[in-house]
Amino acid sequence: MSRQFPDTFSLPLPDDFHLHLRQDEALLRYVPDAAASFGRVIVMPNTTPPIRDEHSLSRYREQIMTAAGDAPWFVPLMTFKIAESHTADAVRRLAESGATAGKLYPQGATTNAEDGVSDIRAAWPVFAAMEAQDLVLCIHGEDPSSFVLDREDAFLPIVDQIASDFPRLRIVLEHITTARAVDLVLRLPDNVAATITVHHLLLTLDAIIGGFLNPHVFCKPVMKRPEDREALARAACSDSPKFFFGSDSAPHPIGAKESSCGCAGVYTAPVAMPLLIDFFERHGTMESLRAFCCERGRRFYRVPPSDYEVTYTREAWTVPATYGDVVPLNAGRAVSWTASRPTIISGG
Amino acid sequence: MSRQFPDTFSLPLPDDFHLHLRQDEALLRYVPDAAASFGRVIVMPNTTPPIRDEHSLSRYREQIMTAAGDAPWFVPLMTFKIAESHTADAVRRLAESGATAGKLYPQGATTNAEDGVSDIRAAWPVFAAMEAQDLVLCIHGEDPSSFVLDREDAFLPIVDQIASDFPRLRIVLEHITTARAVDLVLRLPDNVAATITVHHLLLTLDAIIGGFLNPHVFCKPVMKRPEDREALARAACSDSPKFFFGSDSAPHPIGAKESSCGCAGVYTAPVAMPLLIDFFERHGTMESLRAFCCERGRRFYRVPPSDYEVTYTREAWTVPATYGDVVPLNAGRAVSWTASRPTIISGG
Repeated sequence: MSRQFPDTFSLPLPDDFHLHLRQDEALLRYVPDAAASFGRVIVMPNTTPPIRDEHSLSRYREQIMTAAGDAPWFVPLMTFKIAESHTADAVRRLAESGATAGKLYPQGATTNAEDGVSDIRAAWPVFAAMEAQDLVLCIHGEDPSSFVLDREDAFLPIVDQIASDFPRLRIVLEHITTARAVDLVLRLPDNVAATITVHHLLLTLDAIIGGFLNPHVFCKPVMKRPEDREALARAACSDSPKFFFGSDSAPHPIGAKESSCGCAGVYTAPVAMPLLIDFFERHGTMESLRAFCCERGRRFYRVPPSDYEVTYTREAWTVPATYGDVVPLNAGRAVSWTASRPTIISGG
Repeated sequence: MSRQFPDTFSLPLPDDFHLHLRQDEALLRYVPDAAASFGRVIVMPNTTPPIRDEHSLSRYREQIMTAAGDAPWFVPLMTFKIAESHTADAVRRLAESGATAGKLYPQGATTNAEDGVSDIRAAWPVFAAMEAQDLVLCIHGEDPSSFVLDREDAFLPIVDQIASDFPRLRIVLEHITTARAVDLVLRLPDNVAATITVHHLLLTLDAIIGGFLNPHVFCKPVMKRPEDREALARAACSDSPKFFFGSDSAPHPIGAKESSCGCAGVYTAPVAMPLLIDFFERHGTMESLRAFCCERGRRFYRVPPSDYEVTYTREAWTVPATYGDVVPLNAGRAVSWTASRPTIISGG
C-alpha cells in the first residue's frame, strides 16, 4: 500500500453537504455520530411530515442542536422540501428563518419522496423565488419513470434547463453516480456543482448484486458501472471547484434493510472520513482530500472557513457491526485512520 | 386485456429444462410442486456435495422419485457437475447410468459454484468425452471476473469457441438474459440452444433495485435492461427451435433471502405455467406457448412427446405468501390460469 500521507496530519474540520438526521429517538442516536466527524452539515428535509415551512425548519434545527450536545463546532444548515405550491412569500419566510437550501425530489425518486414534485416545470416559479433569495437548489436528479440505471442520465436535461433559465441560482446536483453527470456539471457554468458520496466513490453495482445480495449498500441513486465510478474518482481528485463531499449518510434499522422490501440508504457518517482519507491517499493527494472535504463545498455554499481542526492518525480500528440497530458501511472491517475530537484552530 | 386464448385449453404436459430440487427435507417439500406442473425436468447437480459420479447421480434420482410420490408423469433427467478432473471413463460411466447432461459452472458464478471450473480450457477433454457419449452440455454462461452486468456477454466468446470446437456436442446456454446472448445463439449452428426463465421474460433489473430492494427476485444471472428483456421475449415467441423453457426455479428459505447476504434464486415452479400462459397470450400465440413449453426443449434433448396432457382454465387464484418457508414469484398476487392434474392422452 502506498503511504504518501504522514502518519499524523491535521485538516480543517470537514463539512458534509448532504446528510439525513432522522427524527425522534433515531435523531438523538445518530446526530452525535455526525457531529463527531463534521462541522457544517446540509440537513435533508425528507422527514415525516417533511420540512416545508419556517416553523418546521426552526423546530427541526432546535431538535438537532439539542441532540448534538457538547459539539460547538456542529452547525446544521437547514433545507426545505420543495413543493409546487411554495409561493415567493413562503420562500422568503424560509430564507429569513435561516434556510440554506431547498431540496427538489422528483416524486417517487427515493425514500419519502412520494410527496415530491410530480411536474418539475410547475416548480419553475419556486426556483425563481429561491434565486431571488440566494438560496441553493439541491437536486435529487433522477427521473423515476426511466429504467433504474438510466434515471440519472435521463434527468440531466432538466438540470441543464434549470441552470440555463436561472443563471444566478446556485445548484447542487446531489450524490452523482454517472460519467455523464460529471461531464454535464463540468460543462455548465460555475453556479452548478455536485456532491459525491463515499460509497459512490468506492463501490459499483457489484457491491449490491455482484455476489450475495447486500441490502446494506443499497441506495438511490444506485451505484453504477466501473467506468462511472472511475469518472467520479477523477472528478473528486481533480482541481475543479465543482465536486465536493456530501455523504448522503442515512441510518435505516436492520429490519428495514434485511426485508422483503429493503429501504435505500447507506449509513456512512462514522466511517466516511477514514474511508475518504484512504481513498485520497491511494488515488489523490493531501491537497485534493482537503479541497474535497473541507474547502470546495463551503466556498460554494458561502460559509466561512472552519474555526476547528481535526488530527487524523494512522491507527486502525474495526468498524462495529452496528451503530444502534443500523449496519454501517464497512461493518466489521478495519479502517486505517482515527480522528481526534475537533479543536479550535489556535490563532484562528 | 387481450383474450386470444380460449377459456379452457389443453397442452401436452410441459417440461422444465432447468430446475433445482434441493436435498433432504427441502427436496421432500419442493419436488411435488415441480411434479404438479411438469413432466420431464433437467435437475441441476449443484447440491452439497455436488453430483459428480454415477453413484451420487443414481442416489439423487431415487430420492427425487421417492419425493415425487404418485406422479407417474414426472421424470427427472439427471445431470452432473463438470470438473476438470472428469476422465473420459468417468463421463462414460455417468452416461451409462443415465445422465442426460453435464453442467458447467464457472467457479464462483452463482450459489454453490465455489467448486466450479476455474480454467474452462482445462475442461475441453471433458467436453470431448461428453460429445462422444452424446451428453448435453448445460452452461451457466457468466464470467465471474467481470462487472455483474457484463458477465454473460463476457462469457459468450467461450460458448462460441466450445460450439466451434465440438460441432456434434449439443450445448444449452442456460437462463440467458441479454440481447447479445440471443444473437449469438441464433447465429450458432443447430447444436446450440438456450433456456429462458419466466422471471427473465417478465422482469428487468428494475424488479430487484428499481424501487425498494426485493431479495425474492434476486437471481444469477441478474435480470438486465428493458431492451434485453424484449429480445428474450421476441426469442421465446419466435419460431426458432433454439429457445425453450427452463425455470431455474430455486427455493431459498426466507431467512436466506431477507438477509445481509441474500442468496440468488427465484422460486417459480408453482406459478411458472400460469405466468407463461399469460405472457404468451399477451405477446405470442398458442402455438408459440406450446413450442416454448412442450416441444422445442424435448426435441433438443431428444425425449419423446409426452404421454400426458394438462387442461388450463381461465380461473384466477392468489399465489400464497409462502410455500413452506419460501416466498414464490408473484407472492400474494393473482394469477389467471388454473391447471388440472396431468392425465394420460387418450389414444396416446
